Amino acid sequence: MSSVEQAAASAMPAPSGHGPAAAPEAHGAGTSAAAAEDPIWSVPEHLADILAHIRPLEPLELRLLDAQGCVLAEDVTVPVALPPFDNSSMDGYAVRSADVEGASEHRPAVLTVIGDVAAGSGELPAVRPGEAARIMTGAPLPPGADAVVPVEWTDGGTGRGPATTMRAHSSAPEGAGGEVRVYRPARAGRHIRLRGSDVQAGDLALEAGTVLGPSRIGLLAAIGRSTVTVRPRPRVVVISTGSELVQPGEELTPGRIHDSNSFALTAAARDAGAIAYRAGAVADDAESLRAALEEQLAHADLIVTSGGVSVGAYDVVKETLSRFGGGAHDGDDRDDAGGPHGSSSAAEGGRVEFRRLAMQPGKPQGFGRIGPDRTPLLALPGNPVSAYVSFELFVRPAIRALMGLEPHERRVVRARLEVGEPLTSPAGKRQFLRGRYEPPTQEGTAGGVAPVGGAGSHLVAALAHADALIVIPEDTTEVEPGAELDVVLLG
Amino acid sequence: MSSVEQAAASAMPAPSGHGPAAAPEAHGAGTSAAAAEDPIWSVPEHLADILAHIRPLEPLELRLLDAQGCVLAEDVTVPVALPPFDNSSMDGYAVRSADVEGASEHRPAVLTVIGDVAAGSGELPAVRPGEAARIMTGAPLPPGADAVVPVEWTDGGTGRGPATTMRAHSSAPEGAGGEVRVYRPARAGRHIRLRGSDVQAGDLALEAGTVLGPSRIGLLAAIGRSTVTVRPRPRVVVISTGSELVQPGEELTPGRIHDSNSFALTAAARDAGAIAYRAGAVADDAESLRAALEEQLAHADLIVTSGGVSVGAYDVVKETLSRFGGGAHDGDDRDDAGGPHGSSSAAEGGRVEFRRLAMQPGKPQGFGRIGPDRTPLLALPGNPVSAYVSFELFVRPAIRALMGLEPHERRVVRARLEVGEPLTSPAGKRQFLRGRYEPPTQEGTAGGVAPVGGAGSHLVAALAHADALIVIPEDTTEVEPGAELDVVLLG
Repeated sequence: MSSVEQAAASAMPAPSGHGPAAAPEAHGAGTSAAAAEDPIWSVPEHLADILAHIRPLEPLELRLLDAQGCVLAEDVTVPVALPPFDNSSMDGYAVRSADVEGASEHRPAVLTVIGDVAAGSGELPAVRPGEAARIMTGAPLPPGADAVVPVEWTDGGTGRGPATTMRAHSSAPEGAGGEVRVYRPARAGRHIRLRGSDVQAGDLALEAGTVLGPSRIGLLAAIGRSTVTVRPRPRVVVISTGSELVQPGEELTPGRIHDSNSFALTAAARDAGAIAYRAGAVADDAESLRAALEEQLAHADLIVTSGGVSVGAYDVVKETLSRFGGGAHDGDDRDDAGGPHGSSSAAEGGRVEFRRLAMQPGKPQGFGRIGPDRTPLLALPGNPVSAYVSFELFVRPAIRALMGLEPHERRVVRARLEVGEPLTSPAGKRQFLRGRYEPPTQEGTAGGVAPVGGAGSHLVAALAHADALIVIPEDTTEVEPGAELDVVLLG
Repeated sequence: MSSVEQAAASAMPAPSGHGPAAAPEAHGAGTSAAAAEDPIWSVPEHLADILAHIRPLEPLELRLLDAQGCVLAEDVTVPVALPPFDNSSMDGYAVRSADVEGASEHRPAVLTVIGDVAAGSGELPAVRPGEAARIMTGAPLPPGADAVVPVEWTDGGTGRGPATTMRAHSSAPEGAGGEVRVYRPARAGRHIRLRGSDVQAGDLALEAGTVLGPSRIGLLAAIGRSTVTVRPRPRVVVISTGSELVQPGEELTPGRIHDSNSFALTAAARDAGAIAYRAGAVADDAESLRAALEEQLAHADLIVTSGGVSVGAYDVVKETLSRFGGGAHDGDDRDDAGGPHGSSSAAEGGRVEFRRLAMQPGKPQGFGRIGPDRTPLLALPGNPVSAYVSFELFVRPAIRALMGLEPHERRVVRARLEVGEPLTSPAGKRQFLRGRYEPPTQEGTAGGVAPVGGAGSHLVAALAHADALIVIPEDTTEVEPGAELDVVLLG
């Protein structure tokens, strides 16, 4: 099993540092003369830069069930052995093994029943020679007894041959008295779970870094923990930008479309593990955007915007965020929690850098940290397909890094391209086509993948029917039908 | 890719109907004489019985983001074409293609810029011969224009050679006037996304049965839907029973242990997609249990209990639930919503049947439907490992069935058993050992799986370190090191 980044790396020279290794302007689509100042970043370079500037959130003590899916931030040791006392693994009779030695159906051992030991019993009757106590699964072994005989090996105290069940205490309290016939021997220790046979006091129950799934939450409860220190889920605020955006459910006027990015990206952030808030759509106006950011910064661990990052005259995300003074995110500033300029504007604590990436879709991207807490911000392009692909490649790993998880999660497999005609791809760009994946029918062979929809980054219907991204490497300009490619499986 | 049930089925004769095909008492561990009345159920038989009596929840109209992960219960058609109007795929200039025919760097076409068309523009300037309008990505194509020239193919109106970006409207409103030099031709239709090129009005956007992931939620937003009709997530109430149980964080007194099942099962239910409530632990007392059930029935779509289902004298779950009169869950009673006896007790609307299963751990199991809404109830055994394995085999598929999802979700793979000594397994029982799985290092080969901890169903620490269940079929009593077995991958 590989990962997007690893798959990526194999098709690219490894980046040196976090900036682009070189300025491969020859790949560029534009005729730009500004190439020297504006290098093109590769997909792994941009991701590496993001991950180098994101650190896991500070640990919090959470109630057990609120910590589900989070990464443990403490080594948890066992305070008291499990089980805390020797106890029965069966419903039956606690006996002295010597008393049932040689017992058989023809020659049962007959013992006097002295009472019940239910689970949770604190006061235990002593079992003397010739005696037995009814005992329930999980109940402590009473003093004197050294074995448990399951009820199915006895007559259950009825005197009427082999039993299948005990008589319920509520309806037949007399079951806890009288005599019981035992038809089989039980050696010392039989059907007894010894104190500490699961874990001992002082053992390491779970180590820091463990992801808390259901059975681990069960273990923490079993050793008595009601709270646990974990890296919390990041609070991700999603803001879409564009004066053309109308909220779903509202009427479209000419020239306008419904906002879909804020919904898709909020859902995707939740899917990646975040607590995501949809702040909705902001018009292409610097003051509105600034106000929205300042409002949201107070409760965001990560901000994701869509739109406004390209070369147009109304790209206010780029315009607003690249203009904020000082506090460039690069360099080692891990101890520098506050904005460097003591500015009163929350958004002025940092700067966002806008870049062209050698990918399609998703060429324009922004990343930086803003506000007094230097909250990371990823500015994604506004075309829905570009935004979604960018989320998968950059935001999902960033959310996982904030949680302290390994950033790369998606499975990458090789698959045969199922097309009628060769596919073309622009030189120097890593192309991500939407596809449907068919797993291999036979082990050891590759599955198949067929593109859905075209390359247009506005094709949201095709995206909704895709379950994979087909990766066409930078140096590939044509792919023949049947060729094998890397495919990123989405969920 | 297979499933637990399929893997199961291959090792077992197919069940005929929902009851046990035969009463294979020869397999049984007990010496019971009551075999004829009390047949042993196989794992697939019990699961089939549960699934036959669970139907998907009634559809609800939810807000888009609340429907994430749910199954669509309506066919959604497209009300208005996407895109709703012809629009630009680039930041650039809307032109008449005839005006830029033959344009080159040496002989640029010079056009008069008549203004801006921003995204969201409602009123559009007409582009006449010799004219161009600045146009942004997503903005509607103005009348007269039939192509878009990207800004990188022009001088951006600066008169200073090839541009890389437009001058921002906010800082340079004069960019929307004057002249622009165009250095390349653009044929009619170039860089234009035609109305309806994604979907047409009347198209089926998503069909009933589709699971709503992020990109599908994006599509629904894009076509203007703010709400959608889905099968909701089931509300699952988890109740653990046992007088020995103390809540985590509280002090243990002699004979008592911390409640872990209610935590592990609540987390597991959430992991399976449910909205789960932990009702906590109830003492082994029929009245307490009845009161807890009646309180929880009001807001439960499924109740899961642990403990109290075996053959002991204090097994109150079994005692309480099998005693409720009438309304046996079997038979076709789909139109019968109320309790058949007009009883005033909420819990008396149905009955729970308790069974012995041919499995280890997890032999005692209960299933039925109770209360006025005949809410399904699964009664799991109380040993933590038994409860967890039972959840995976029976509760997870039940939750998925309530959501309208395909019940079987877990991947089942073949893996080589990595042990030093042969493993033994009881005849006639399907055994589920906890293991750690290592995926194959080479495609086309099997991975490996090593058991963690022993067979004891109290070993919660080992369970917490397992990521797989190793399945030893009913007819297998010994497995050699290196043998291949089915392995259920947990998450």
